[in-house]
This record gives sequence, structure tokens and C-alpha cells, in this order.
Amino acid sequence: MVRTKKPPEVRSNELIDCAERLFFQHGYENTTVNDVIQAANVSKGAFYHYFVSKEALLEAVATRLAQRNLEALQPLIGDPSLDAVGQLNALFAGSRRMKLEMASQLKNTFNALFKPENVALYHRIDEALLAVSIPLVAEILRRGHAEGTLDAPDPEAAASMLLQLRVSVARVMHKALQRYEAGDLEGAAAMLDGWMRTYGTAIERFLKLPDGSIEATEPRFSRAFLEA
Amino acid sequence: MVRTKKPPEVRSNELIDCAERLFFQHGYENTTVNDVIQAANVSKGAFYHYFVSKEALLEAVATRLAQRNLEALQPLIGDPSLDAVGQLNALFAGSRRMKLEMASQLKNTFNALFKPENVALYHRIDEALLAVSIPLVAEILRRGHAEGTLDAPDPEAAASMLLQLRVSVARVMHKALQRYEAGDLEGAAAMLDGWMRTYGTAIERFLKLPDGSIEATEPRFSRAFLEA
Repeated sequence: MVRTKKPPEVRSNELIDCAERLFFQHGYENTTVNDVIQAANVSKGAFYHYFVSKEALLEAVATRLAQRNLEALQPLIGDPSLDAVGQLNALFAGSRRMKLEMASQLKNTFNALFKPENVALYHRIDEALLAVSIPLVAEILRRGHAEGTLDAPDPEAAASMLLQLRVSVARVMHKALQRYEAGDLEGAAAMLDGWMRTYGTAIERFLKLPDGSIEATEPRFSRAFLEA
Repeated sequence: MVRTKKPPEVRSNELIDCAERLFFQHGYENTTVNDVIQAANVSKGAFYHYFVSKEALLEAVATRLAQRNLEALQPLIGDPSLDAVGQLNALFAGSRRMKLEMASQLKNTFNALFKPENVALYHRIDEALLAVSIPLVAEILRRGHAEGTLDAPDPEAAASMLLQLRVSVARVMHKALQRYEAGDLEGAAAMLDGWMRTYGTAIERFLKLPDGSIEATEPRFSRAFLEA
């Protein structure tokens, strides 16, 4: 085997690439450390130099996905003319745009994550996403509370709870996808729309905002995402 | 081996008992079907007559735990003089009482559930609890919306979201326990109290209830639970 000498972070990233691809393709439970070693074309020794176990690799995959998610979200709230509510809406609008752009990839991800052999993968990604998103949203809520545009006396707890609700939206998105794949586009779109609207209402009420201030969804988004 | 002839539901329940005990004692990942077969003193054939796989056994453990939880909750809302808000408060009060009564068992459960080898166990129990609790809470919200004591135009979605928030409370409860075990009772109690209060506020606001109508916690509960 011919192996090229590469800087450590390049090698480590390649291992994470391989692991991520294999986990999503074949399932986390069904992928062994040896599968990753072979796919990445590294020695056993080299692998264990970077990761002590498959669990550590899972951690790295989840952390990198969450980090990339954060990097995609951060520019959305950079506009200094936005108040806190504007920033929350910018996050929603940007996240809808990304969902439509990456729809087919995202659908595969959803289908993979909700398989029984991927419960650990799902769980770690969920944890990692929460860990990077809570400080971001808490900061927006803190600012909004200070400027008086929203009411969130305990921004950390409020941010965690609002993001926890996104988890239930993810479940519904998966159910809606299954329904769409079973041929019921109308039912699936109505289900997803209804949930996103209730999610928006929950945020407005929780932060004492006027009705209609949070655009958690927009007309035709659910249908466009399902059909994309 | 001497085996007694038992009715099928007794045998099946015994297998679930054994599995539950082993899963919580040694971890789900570390328990094999053979461990359960040995502990229950049944033949392999008998085991597979009841459960096709370890996964099916996990399902049965989770479903039974959720069913028992539902049976414990239902009498709490049976008082016909209670309106919907009274029923929600009765659920909270009853759940606090149960937490205090079963504190040491619950602490062990929490410690087991949050271990990496129990992520599948955690996940399935969570799903099963949501599956039985959502209809119960949705029914309360539907009634409250009809009688005008609360505002929940989409009771199913609202119930799912409120119960999803409980998941984040469970995480905080686990963190508070760790903090208490590390010697910081004050910090742990304050953390848990703060979260429970924010949870109560979230429910009040989401259902458009006056401040203070939901008693998600009460003074000294967190401290009493941690010290129990």
C-alpha cells in the first residue's frame, strides 16, 4: 500500500469523512472501525493515533456536522440592522433556504437517522447540534430581552427549550417524508405546515411576541421541500 | 432444569422483568439474549416464542414502563371537579410526589439511562412515554380549549411540544444529580428549580394562561428530591 504523508488535521478529517459516509450509507451499528480503516486507506496504528474508539469517531462526526451547521447559521444573523426578532426570522428563512437547496441529501440523512441501527448516531448529532446552537440562540434572546423586543428572563433555559422543540419538528419532518413517499403529498404537506405554524406560535407566545412576528414557515415551503 | 408450566402472559412478563433488570444493571449494549434466557431460566425456544430479538425485548420493556407510567398518571386527573388547568397541575403535583417516593430508584434509572451503552434504551423509553402521554395531554388541552380555560387550537401538536420540553427537563435533572453527587447541593437545587420554573412559564405562555397558573415545581422540591 502506498501512503502519502499528510498533515495530521487533513488525515483526521479524511477519517471523519469516511466514517460519516459509511455511517450514513450502512448504518452506525453496521460499520466497524476496520471498515473505516480500509475505506480511508490508513494503518490500524494511524487510525488509533487519531481516535481511541468507534465511539470517539462518532463524537468527531457529530461535532463536525454541528460545527458546519453553526458556520452556516452565523452569517445569517450578521446584518447589524436586525433586532433579535429579525435575527430569529433570519435563522428560520436561512434554514428553509438551506433545506430546499440540500433537499435530496437531507432526505437521505433523515431516512438514515431514524433507522434503529442509527439511534446512537442520531442521539450524538442531536446533542452536538444542541451544544452549538444553544449559546447562539441564548445570545439572541439575551440581546432581545435587553433591547426590549422580546421577553426571556432566563435566556439559556429558554434557548434550550426552543431548540428542544425543533427536535419534535424533525420527527414530524421524518413522518411527513414517509407519508409523501407513500403517495400522500397533500396530507404530508398539511402535516408539516401545521406543525411549523404551531412551532412559530409556540415561540411567539413563549417570548411574549405579537401574533405573526415569527415566520417559522412560509406558504408552499412544505410542499416545495417534499417535492424537491 | 425444572421448569414450571406458566400461562403465556406470566412467562412473557417474567422475561420482560429479567430484561429490564439486566438492561438497567449492566447496560443495554452489554446484555445479550442469552443473559436474559439464563436469568429467566427458560429455554432458547421458549424465549424466541415470545420475542424475535433483543430489539423486540427492548420494545416490550419500553412499552410496559410507559404503560405503567400512564396507569399511575390517569387516576391523578380523575377528579371531575378539576378543569383542564387543574388537571395539568394535578399531573405535576402527582409526578413530584412519585419522584420523591421513588427517588433512589429514579436516580439509578437516570444514571443508567444517560450512559453511552444505553442510548437505545433511553431512546425507546422516551418514544414509548411520548406515545402514551401525548394522547392524555392532548385530551386535556382539547377539553381546556373547549371550556375556554386555555388556548390550544392544535391540541395534538401542542401536547407533543409540551412533552418534548419535558425531555430537556430530564436532561437537566440528570445534570443536577451529577452536580449534587459532586458535592454542590445548592448549585444543583438552584439549577433544577430554575429550569422547572422556566418550564412552568413556557407552558403558561404557550397556553395563554395567567402568570402563576401552572405549578411545575414548588419550593424545596428540588432540594428534597436531590437529598432523598
